[in-house]
Amino acid sequence: MTSGFGLDHLPYGVFSPPGGPPRVGVRVEDDVVDVSGIRPELGAATLNPFMALGRAVWEEVRAEITAAVEVDRLPRHELAGVELHLPIEVGDYVDFYASEHHASNVGRIFRPDQAPLLPNWKHLPVGYHGRAGTVVPSSTGIVRPCGQRKAPNDEAPTFGPTRRLDIEAELGFVVGTPSRLGSRVSTAAFADHTFGVVGLNDWSARDIQAWEYVPLGPFLGKSFATSISHWVTPLAALAAAWVDLPGQDPEPLDYLQVTGPAGLEVDVEVVLNGEVVARPPYSSMYWAPAQMLAHLTVNGASVRTGDLWASGTISGPERGQRGSFLELSWGGREPFVAGGLERTFLEDGDEVTLRYAAPGVLGGRITLGEVTGRILPADLPEA
Amino acid sequence: MTSGFGLDHLPYGVFSPPGGPPRVGVRVEDDVVDVSGIRPELGAATLNPFMALGRAVWEEVRAEITAAVEVDRLPRHELAGVELHLPIEVGDYVDFYASEHHASNVGRIFRPDQAPLLPNWKHLPVGYHGRAGTVVPSSTGIVRPCGQRKAPNDEAPTFGPTRRLDIEAELGFVVGTPSRLGSRVSTAAFADHTFGVVGLNDWSARDIQAWEYVPLGPFLGKSFATSISHWVTPLAALAAAWVDLPGQDPEPLDYLQVTGPAGLEVDVEVVLNGEVVARPPYSSMYWAPAQMLAHLTVNGASVRTGDLWASGTISGPERGQRGSFLELSWGGREPFVAGGLERTFLEDGDEVTLRYAAPGVLGGRITLGEVTGRILPADLPEA
Repeated sequence: MTSGFGLDHLPYGVFSPPGGPPRVGVRVEDDVVDVSGIRPELGAATLNPFMALGRAVWEEVRAEITAAVEVDRLPRHELAGVELHLPIEVGDYVDFYASEHHASNVGRIFRPDQAPLLPNWKHLPVGYHGRAGTVVPSSTGIVRPCGQRKAPNDEAPTFGPTRRLDIEAELGFVVGTPSRLGSRVSTAAFADHTFGVVGLNDWSARDIQAWEYVPLGPFLGKSFATSISHWVTPLAALAAAWVDLPGQDPEPLDYLQVTGPAGLEVDVEVVLNGEVVARPPYSSMYWAPAQMLAHLTVNGASVRTGDLWASGTISGPERGQRGSFLELSWGGREPFVAGGLERTFLEDGDEVTLRYAAPGVLGGRITLGEVTGRILPADLPEA
Repeated sequence: MTSGFGLDHLPYGVFSPPGGPPRVGVRVEDDVVDVSGIRPELGAATLNPFMALGRAVWEEVRAEITAAVEVDRLPRHELAGVELHLPIEVGDYVDFYASEHHASNVGRIFRPDQAPLLPNWKHLPVGYHGRAGTVVPSSTGIVRPCGQRKAPNDEAPTFGPTRRLDIEAELGFVVGTPSRLGSRVSTAAFADHTFGVVGLNDWSARDIQAWEYVPLGPFLGKSFATSISHWVTPLAALAAAWVDLPGQDPEPLDYLQVTGPAGLEVDVEVVLNGEVVARPPYSSMYWAPAQMLAHLTVNGASVRTGDLWASGTISGPERGQRGSFLELSWGGREPFVAGGLERTFLEDGDEVTLRYAAPGVLGGRITLGEVTGRILPADLPEA
């Protein structure tokens, strides 16, 4: 069986068995293995206490769990019979903008008369803080948000449900080991601080965002919800997935230098109502995860256990590799076909699932935790 | 004695008595009254468990503490003999931009050829998420941050300590009662959700900010540190400080409507190395705190106990009322005099203190918790 959840993967999540309190489990095939007996910290309702123990313990525990699963020594529950929770308590949430293809597409759509990339883009991984308190686990329904929208030709803004609800297919990175305020995390220390990877959908209301975002960036166009997978893939399970970056020109400043393969081969699928509508390749990302963490902390900002940063929308060079509906429909002007219909942005009832696959350490493929969400109607009638 | 910390104030903080663990205290004159015996939640190391109890309990406990302090029934420590801590565990931190004078000044300084306010500014309180994990208590030393800076005429960015380190004199508002994801907090429900007010200094590295902030907003130019006062003034102590807003034109959309006095009379002093260099009046702010909270949640985003939002720089219409050095020195081009010297941005060793005073409910004045910080040299030599 090649579920992508074999011994070469063992992602962590938080689950409640029937009638029991939340605790840490590891997914094996279509079961959840209860690992809470291995370390007291794994009996907690989030991964944070375990993640705070640091890299040496992560490796030790992974070896113990592997051995225990091989001899079937730990309690095992069918996935369908347990409740899954948000796996981490999110500290700060930062969203980057690390795909050159995505940033260029957005530039061409919104600023057709200018260079597609702004002058800073190739010098630093552009990013901003998002709302940590509205990070929700996969399967949470997404209520269509309301807000102010103003089309260029409208005289004044109006209030109502977003008409341009979108996804952003991203990868998220979870901090395990904290850093001290006033210190920085070098690119070489990436794996000491990063516990693992989640699938992430940065739901976006494009009309709200377009009106609000100058000059301080996205706010309500993003803050209503960000979905992450139930499963956190430990970095160790991605050891065979590292690949060279596509290439950086100009050469980045010293603190952003990386040696060796710093990109990740993760193949993403964007699934709309059961149909694959895009296949963004993470390997096409311009900036490396290690560069994002180094940049995030180069001013002395500390990271905490549970901090989450996301890559930004993953888009490849081809049309079928775009990780947002904004790009797939070119700003709504060039609908794409899905389910036999012309589509631009999300309709109520739509379900979007992001799937992720990567090379595993045993030569096969692993399947990262998927992220799914269905659009629920706005709470209030449109004015 | 008129310290501003009488029975009409009673702000909350977290302190450790000599040899004892952290707990909640209330400041009375130059003492800290240990209130941890009043409710179990007040024995915690942050105000969050108490703030989560809701407005009815806040009022009940305030009455109990007032009665107990009047008869001197609670343990009392000299302020100088205790250790003060960060009073809240910050959930999400949002920074607004609610002063018309500040936003206009910044527009004139950075975009002299355009209208000083961007088109959205009078329709919604512009804001963005900042870094919660680097909110520090008053008196924490501020290490000059490093980062990428690029002056307009430089060919490429360089890395090094900021050359344009600045303050932003703000008020912070602390959420007590949480809201549910998918619901919104009306302007009328402001006092049900808002526990109190802190002094706040949004330290800013203007050169880092100017280079990084397009198109997703400020990031490393702000995330190195945000200082708040040790003392949280409960909303009840500001009951006599409400004043009418200066006036809003155009009329805001329905969800931003307020009735009655929605502004606050709080007089701020910016003190540089012991000398008052500006006196920003909070009453000149365009957007009300209740409007900021209503806007923040209108898309269904939830708030959590401990969430913090700030007003943005408080600047009045006059030159001596500007709440940042960027404005006081007009982008560094018109130095101001302090300590007998021409000054623009912050130098190593400078100490900045923000002081706040407001009308109290007994006819006198209360002094909100001050925020102070000294600039420490950058960790690395300038390239």
